[in-house]
Amino acid sequence: MSRIDGRTPEQLRPVTIERGWSKHAEGSVLVSFGDTKVFCTASVAEGVPRWRKGTGEGWVTAEYAMLPRSTNTRGDRESVRGKIGGRTHEISRLIGRSLRAVIDFKALGENTIVLDCDVLQADGGTRTAAITGAYVALADSITWAQGKKLIKHGRQPLTGTVSAVSVGIVDGIPLLDLCYEEDVRAETDMNVVCTGDGRFVEVQGTAEAEPFARDELNSLLDLAVTGCATLDTTQREALARTR
Amino acid sequence: MSRIDGRTPEQLRPVTIERGWSKHAEGSVLVSFGDTKVFCTASVAEGVPRWRKGTGEGWVTAEYAMLPRSTNTRGDRESVRGKIGGRTHEISRLIGRSLRAVIDFKALGENTIVLDCDVLQADGGTRTAAITGAYVALADSITWAQGKKLIKHGRQPLTGTVSAVSVGIVDGIPLLDLCYEEDVRAETDMNVVCTGDGRFVEVQGTAEAEPFARDELNSLLDLAVTGCATLDTTQREALARTR
Amino acid sequence: MSRIDGRTPEQLRPVTIERGWSKHAEGSVLVSFGDTKVFCTASVAEGVPRWRKGTGEGWVTAEYAMLPRSTNTRGDRESVRGKIGGRTHEISRLIGRSLRAVIDFKALGENTIVLDCDVLQADGGTRTAAITGAYVALADSITWAQGKKLIKHGRQPLTGTVSAVSVGIVDGIPLLDLCYEEDVRAETDMNVVCTGDGRFVEVQGTAEAEPFARDELNSLLDLAVTGCATLDTTQREALARTR
Amino acid sequence: MSRIDGRTPEQLRPVTIERGWSKHAEGSVLVSFGDTKVFCTASVAEGVPRWRKGTGEGWVTAEYAMLPRSTNTRGDRESVRGKIGGRTHEISRLIGRSLRAVIDFKALGENTIVLDCDVLQADGGTRTAAITGAYVALADSITWAQGKKLIKHGRQPLTGTVSAVSVGIVDGIPLLDLCYEEDVRAETDMNVVCTGDGRFVEVQGTAEAEPFARDELNSLLDLAVTGCATLDTTQREALARTR
Amino acid sequence: MSRIDGRTPEQLRPVTIERGWSKHAEGSVLVSFGDTKVFCTASVAEGVPRWRKGTGEGWVTAEYAMLPRSTNTRGDRESVRGKIGGRTHEISRLIGRSLRAVIDFKALGENTIVLDCDVLQADGGTRTAAITGAYVALADSITWAQGKKLIKHGRQPLTGTVSAVSVGIVDGIPLLDLCYEEDVRAETDMNVVCTGDGRFVEVQGTAEAEPFARDELNSLLDLAVTGCATLDTTQREALARTR
Amino acid sequence: MSRIDGRTPEQLRPVTIERGWSKHAEGSVLVSFGDTKVFCTASVAEGVPRWRKGTGEGWVTAEYAMLPRSTNTRGDRESVRGKIGGRTHEISRLIGRSLRAVIDFKALGENTIVLDCDVLQADGGTRTAAITGAYVALADSITWAQGKKLIKHGRQPLTGTVSAVSVGIVDGIPLLDLCYEEDVRAETDMNVVCTGDGRFVEVQGTAEAEPFARDELNSLLDLAVTGCATLDTTQREALARTR
Repeated sequence: MSRIDGRTPEQLRPVTIERGWSKHAEGSVLVSFGDTKVFCTASVAEGVPRWRKGTGEGWVTAEYAMLPRSTNTRGDRESVRGKIGGRTHEISRLIGRSLRAVIDFKALGENTIVLDCDVLQADGGTRTAAITGAYVALADSITWAQGKKLIKHGRQPLTGTVSAVSVGIVDGIPLLDLCYEEDVRAETDMNVVCTGDGRFVEVQGTAEAEPFARDELNSLLDLAVTGCATLDTTQREALARTR
Repeated sequence: MSRIDGRTPEQLRPVTIERGWSKHAEGSVLVSFGDTKVFCTASVAEGVPRWRKGTGEGWVTAEYAMLPRSTNTRGDRESVRGKIGGRTHEISRLIGRSLRAVIDFKALGENTIVLDCDVLQADGGTRTAAITGAYVALADSITWAQGKKLIKHGRQPLTGTVSAVSVGIVDGIPLLDLCYEEDVRAETDMNVVCTGDGRFVEVQGTAEAEPFARDELNSLLDLAVTGCATLDTTQREALARTR
Repeated sequence: MSRIDGRTPEQLRPVTIERGWSKHAEGSVLVSFGDTKVFCTASVAEGVPRWRKGTGEGWVTAEYAMLPRSTNTRGDRESVRGKIGGRTHEISRLIGRSLRAVIDFKALGENTIVLDCDVLQADGGTRTAAITGAYVALADSITWAQGKKLIKHGRQPLTGTVSAVSVGIVDGIPLLDLCYEEDVRAETDMNVVCTGDGRFVEVQGTAEAEPFARDELNSLLDLAVTGCATLDTTQREALARTR
Repeated sequence: MSRIDGRTPEQLRPVTIERGWSKHAEGSVLVSFGDTKVFCTASVAEGVPRWRKGTGEGWVTAEYAMLPRSTNTRGDRESVRGKIGGRTHEISRLIGRSLRAVIDFKALGENTIVLDCDVLQADGGTRTAAITGAYVALADSITWAQGKKLIKHGRQPLTGTVSAVSVGIVDGIPLLDLCYEEDVRAETDMNVVCTGDGRFVEVQGTAEAEPFARDELNSLLDLAVTGCATLDTTQREALARTR
Repeated sequence: MSRIDGRTPEQLRPVTIERGWSKHAEGSVLVSFGDTKVFCTASVAEGVPRWRKGTGEGWVTAEYAMLPRSTNTRGDRESVRGKIGGRTHEISRLIGRSLRAVIDFKALGENTIVLDCDVLQADGGTRTAAITGAYVALADSITWAQGKKLIKHGRQPLTGTVSAVSVGIVDGIPLLDLCYEEDVRAETDMNVVCTGDGRFVEVQGTAEAEPFARDELNSLLDLAVTGCATLDTTQREALARTR
Repeated sequence: MSRIDGRTPEQLRPVTIERGWSKHAEGSVLVSFGDTKVFCTASVAEGVPRWRKGTGEGWVTAEYAMLPRSTNTRGDRESVRGKIGGRTHEISRLIGRSLRAVIDFKALGENTIVLDCDVLQADGGTRTAAITGAYVALADSITWAQGKKLIKHGRQPLTGTVSAVSVGIVDGIPLLDLCYEEDVRAETDMNVVCTGDGRFVEVQGTAEAEPFARDELNSLLDLAVTGCATLDTTQREALARTR
């Protein structure tokens, strides 16, 4: 049985990570998971939020947004509506937590890195593409900050790698990396964030139609772990390329 | 080894569910998980949001909030700040999804039920207490609406029961139903929403300090499933009491 | 002639004041005037707003809010609407002024006490119940702060007691402590805030239907003064109880 | 003993009411109470708010605002801050209620009149000047609407006249119509809204420093009633002038 | 051919500039261009915005607003809507830039002058009347600040004079100082801000219906320069009058 | 004398217009003027805003925004701040007006086209690049709508072409198409929007430092007209390419 776009159940969409997409940002990436395209920038600033001052520790945070016409029908701008929707908040928080999971704040020193993940085109999996791309932008920005001596040498602020993928059950079959059409039809939908050593940073599973059983959960986790391992390789290859 | 409050790792805090706490609401519950106290009301209104009109299907949604002094130090009111924080949004959405998982919208007919979950006192696990209590308020409000003939007889809008509990790893040990002090110290924190037949509606696990391994995830899920089974019994007993 | 709930015109509803309703707040009270139930907390914080810094004087302020389903039909949350309505503002300001009337700010020192009055169930007279309950929470919080040496001994910050009651003319008859149904039908509606020695802190009378004459005003004031005297006793009894 | 500006305690400031101050509004007045100057316009629109549709009854509402430099030091614009302050809300509501007290909504028919009261210069008593001026603008707008046949003849929408004045106790002496300097020093401050026949529409007394006794309240009410009688004459004279 | 109000194409409406219209503001003017009336105040405050601190330079900014019934049909208050519209922002920014063009910030010292331009009655050309009037209020406020020694003598903060006028093409004919009815019908509309020596501070031309040719642009600029020269004289005469 | 990037004064930066940059939008373009990159989408929707219903005429509007890290230092998101800044409003309005200048609304029928112009990377001239790119996206979306029969054949909604360029005086020399560094140093800055036949849609000139003389204005207009003629060619070439 093949999927809507011809993939096998356990196959990722074509994933590309282009670095150096902005001349201003300290790290920047255009990441695509198939037709999902997210522009991720990492901005380094000296200093930390007030509640963290004097701790000697840095901070990493993220903001996610969708361009109004990144989707099939145009959505209102959140700036025009004057408030940020719940979904946006939730994803921004998820991205921030995911990347903080691989940061040694002491080694980062009192610096703040903001990851902006703006979805240029959406076709399912925008949050997982954002996390996967933001990791690469973050890594580049840390290298930049080390070059500028903002971050002291000796101790590496990045304690590991992190990537994310969606999995879901469609027509009873567990699938990896859902595109929009699959996502809409999924009975269960899960986003999984893994470190490069195969451990979990976030597991968020939701029954969209029917509650799911333990063995379904297990199948989905198996798929996700495999997917993240592949993404980890793609991230490493991207970072290995000379810009 | 015993916990801060003397419980064993797999023990829930004392859970109470008092029905009929409001003279106005169609369903209302004061739920407590130890010192966490959440006031849940279910408000039934005829009609549905615009995007659902004419479908013959109903809607269930939820709003979660904390009273400013429900916590140890007073927080700003979101109404005064003029916007709802990301955490509030996220939890409101979680509660709504969890309860919709056991609703047959066709059977509900074009009625809307709003679940308000206001935290009077917080000591960890406010979202799981809210889901557990809101289920009972929801059940009462459906009975009310059936009595008023707003909902037609013949088909039951509730397709199952739902409850939720938090689990986490503290000092390497998986614990059930974390209180605030445990929650703060947890390496991994997970909220699990189960139906009465032991299937999952939501699984949200977050590595607070260290990424977690698959076997840790499995231990936590085991604990959560047991906890939800106990909560399911408590819910049934509460609903069986004559008010 | 008896009232809708069997009271005589000059009779209060059953009034209860339960202290110690929150484990977090420095003072906390659940006050009920019949079916009107308001949860009042007093939060003590060191320091004062910027405009008062360096004066050696403290500050007392209040915030009033209604839970969405405290009323017969569910109201929108002000946090969701993104702004606070005029009525909420007006009542918050009234509560704050009323309690500041019995505070010696020098004796309080540069501390701030915030009184949160959240209406759990409304049946008329929510603002007067809030003032009456908040006074008790305030008194408890001051005792707490004296125990913690935040407030110096020698001079008592509370210069008196304060309570409040509504009065109104219904079908030509002046009534004390209107319940919701009476309030809706009142030709004139007045809220009166008195100190324990029978003087006035606030008098707010409004002609809802017909302008009112001087002798009607006088009858209402007579009723209110009596009502506040009774409330003063209830407050003292509540404060005399060992918690 | 004479006051800061040479008046006797029971003397109003010079009051002027100029009609026809706007070429656009259906009724418009520049009212001054000494240096307090308020620009009042009455805007008539066919139709009523949604909740009143089909009742055959009209509506009257008011909005009060201060220009940023109407006061001694410049205040922030509420439009710039993005929200309306509690004081503004409170006064807008007071003005609306006061004018609705002399309206027969059936006679008004399904028309809405909005009274805008913008303070050009403030020197105490802005809300009472606003009510007093708005009444005249309202009367002119009703005459206009009758001329345009928006309001049917036969039944007069205005059932009486209404004016307002502040009173207060300064250094133990009850004073009529406080200017800003007196207002700041007042121990007790009261705003009284009367109909032309000497009855009360609103009585709002506040202890600014010390609680006030019943006889003080009585003296203030006596003063206010006299003041409103004089304002009533001034309003009638203004309306009698040919524009 | 004569215009709607009998003027020739190159004629301004009657322009009046009344100084001293506020007892509080350091400079204040009621400016009228025919039926357009704008109340301009200049408020001087010591200190500058944060980003300018320590530079030794001052700041001048402006806020423009329309009273709700300054126009033919009542508009919503921006404070009630909770946000400032694009047009308001744009005009506030234009007024600020125009006046900053004739300020020597070093000579002003670290003082801020805020120009509030509130439209009391609108009949076209509100922004140009506002700039023309605000200049006079600004000049008066600088004189006041020099008298108070807030601004040091020796160097004049005002480096020139500035005024503004609208021009437009109606039925193919270039007209000076459009009233509302002309403005609505204009094919091209231009606002021009000139210094007293005939140079340009702002030129903002917009094709309302048809794109305009270079020679039309030239005719409009010619008209505007003449108009501003006349306004410059009116400003000088106003400032020469003893208040 | 050559410019910072080696251009002659009358030379544009390299301009590229890539069509088909979004799979969702009916028209989409990535336009670059040197390092300034703007992503423009045109979204077609049936129906028009309420005030235009039943007129048989369509509507075209625009929204401009900058990604937070499109600039050298990260700016706050307007969605996070909860309001849109004045500059954003002003530019959105300018883009909308510019494109409406070449639209025959009757021919468009009751359809709305929204142009979203999101700046991915800023280096001066973002609004002029946005207008230039948005025209091409608009043209593509109209072709699409004609193909879908949303727009009737027979009458062409586009009545001409439109492009825009900035000009300014730097060190006394008029320059075409300023990059950021030139823009910051410009004494006078002008944005000019022209139709393909060399007429003006908008002329917005601002004296940044010194007021400018008529002959300087003329030199700038000459430069701008030439620049727009070149851009017009680039637009036509882009539209001629098969996608």
